[in-house]
Amino acid sequence: MKHRLAIIGYGGMAGWHHSNIKEKIPAIEVVGALDVREEAEAKARENGLHVYKDLDELLLDKTVDLVTIATPNDVHKKLAIQCLKAGKNVVCEKPVTLNAKELEEIIAVAEQTGRLFSIHQNRRWDRDFLIVKKAIEEGLIGTPYFVESRVQGSRGAMHGWRGHKQNGGGMLLDWGVHLIDQALQLFPEKVVSVNAHLFSLYSDEVDDNIKLLLRFESGASMLLEMATNCLILQPRWHVSGTEGTLVIEDWSCKGKIVKLKPDGEMTWEDDIVYTEAGPTRTMAPRPKHTTEEVPLPEVKADWTEYYQNIVDVLDHGAELIVKPKQALRVMKVIDALFASQEAGVGLRVDI
Amino acid sequence: MKHRLAIIGYGGMAGWHHSNIKEKIPAIEVVGALDVREEAEAKARENGLHVYKDLDELLLDKTVDLVTIATPNDVHKKLAIQCLKAGKNVVCEKPVTLNAKELEEIIAVAEQTGRLFSIHQNRRWDRDFLIVKKAIEEGLIGTPYFVESRVQGSRGAMHGWRGHKQNGGGMLLDWGVHLIDQALQLFPEKVVSVNAHLFSLYSDEVDDNIKLLLRFESGASMLLEMATNCLILQPRWHVSGTEGTLVIEDWSCKGKIVKLKPDGEMTWEDDIVYTEAGPTRTMAPRPKHTTEEVPLPEVKADWTEYYQNIVDVLDHGAELIVKPKQALRVMKVIDALFASQEAGVGLRVDI
Repeated sequence: MKHRLAIIGYGGMAGWHHSNIKEKIPAIEVVGALDVREEAEAKARENGLHVYKDLDELLLDKTVDLVTIATPNDVHKKLAIQCLKAGKNVVCEKPVTLNAKELEEIIAVAEQTGRLFSIHQNRRWDRDFLIVKKAIEEGLIGTPYFVESRVQGSRGAMHGWRGHKQNGGGMLLDWGVHLIDQALQLFPEKVVSVNAHLFSLYSDEVDDNIKLLLRFESGASMLLEMATNCLILQPRWHVSGTEGTLVIEDWSCKGKIVKLKPDGEMTWEDDIVYTEAGPTRTMAPRPKHTTEEVPLPEVKADWTEYYQNIVDVLDHGAELIVKPKQALRVMKVIDALFASQEAGVGLRVDI
Repeated sequence: MKHRLAIIGYGGMAGWHHSNIKEKIPAIEVVGALDVREEAEAKARENGLHVYKDLDELLLDKTVDLVTIATPNDVHKKLAIQCLKAGKNVVCEKPVTLNAKELEEIIAVAEQTGRLFSIHQNRRWDRDFLIVKKAIEEGLIGTPYFVESRVQGSRGAMHGWRGHKQNGGGMLLDWGVHLIDQALQLFPEKVVSVNAHLFSLYSDEVDDNIKLLLRFESGASMLLEMATNCLILQPRWHVSGTEGTLVIEDWSCKGKIVKLKPDGEMTWEDDIVYTEAGPTRTMAPRPKHTTEEVPLPEVKADWTEYYQNIVDVLDHGAELIVKPKQALRVMKVIDALFASQEAGVGLRVDI
């Protein structure tokens, strides 16, 4: 039997959910939409959906067993709890809530009702992320100890409601939640300290250019950067491992790995090298014969695996990939990062 | 009258001092050297210098009024104080001492004796640094708010005594002191928090790959990185300003500035753009007509200006460029960074 899905908040991301499901997930039929804006209702009708007149009508529609919430962030909690209590399974856009406490309330209701609750952390299926994850898992660069993950734009202000604090706007909640979720996937161990520098260059309300430093229990750390004001882009990923370095330049996943050759032992025979920076041993170029370039690993990347997993959980009791408890860790890290910004200093955590 | 200079510790850097002075500073004559190693003594003799049999002979040599200390870091303090007390003017290699307290002891003696004491922070005259400083001072990128300064090598371990803790080895004291000194020149305001992640990949004793985050009172912050294990290099400088971005690729100072055009107002008319990363407004490319590329500013860069200033101070009462109090701020930042590493978390400071 097909699952019947309704979308609450039929804006930009809802169209994305709708068309991806329609194209790739035959086990789900998108049947209805709820929105407070007339133009969104018109768009939903145009796309062949039933438009609910209010939330009650949707909650009472017994033919719908699955709801995707894609509204502004500040109403996620209320809607998720109402849908779960009405017996719906719920997929919620990210950030799932504005803080960890709100998410704990949802999780409690999901456990009471026994319904599925998951968060649309679709960027776990981004090609660039999957390449980094595979390269690390296959030991291609040894043990990773410093990972830089950057998403840089240059269009200035956050768009629409994402620029408003009361809607849960700002870069940390918008893109930060993706990059932190990816970070915790790469380093599933504990986060032991966080340091946030949140700039508000274009907004009086929300952060729009942010730098985050996460330190993990093993000693590795990550720098996460999200910019709206960067006119000369840096690589999407720069990963330092004990045996090599990995770079992915951009979303198209151009990049490479350069690693130490097992038989490429280096000697200090060259002693001091005179570079344009003056005499140096430490920073002199490494002899070419001691390293080799290898291509990035091949991966399969498909965002719709997210919804396929939802179907597999509902129909076959498969393991849920994006778990509420994982999102709770992400939200706790975000809470700590806001606290770090407030304090103007790094904070010790145990997350 | 020519100043007569003796060098204590005639190793790699001493040769650099010697040849630079000989070539460019006619007001100083390098006349003698003191070292504990026979091969260094031989080298000094070869270069036409008198080789002192011990420190006392040097201190009693009334013809020498200026001493450069270029020994391992752990003996800087003792030697500096002895030289000052013997009436010598003293130039000391960086890091001036192992911590702020040691430097305060030297400063007290310098004040008692009335002799000149300065630190060879020659990288204030690096071309790349001077370009960044000038670009900021001339407002070419608006107000800088995030500056990344990186020195990346790939030869692994620190060389010789720089790999030993008791000699004051390690990357933070070796290169860190330069990059922090430059940072405090770019942002002369107070440092309000520090966060260090010091990795020891190749050494059981000292840090060899380090990431430092400094936050300044104005709200700007800097990421400083020094690596010995980076096989795909990042730019030497990446500077984010409110009106533009500056990049300097490497020591040869290839680079550029991309800035917003005053008449390049951007609209959101494009709405969502479908990139390889999925639909996005915030991260969509900025229309080309709204930005322009401008060349890096021209600068004059000459390391020997350091010694010319020493001569000008001694002969004409000029203002000392590299002041002990500035080095004291740098050492306080370094003390705090070591404390941050020890604590595993960022620390609030007032430096």
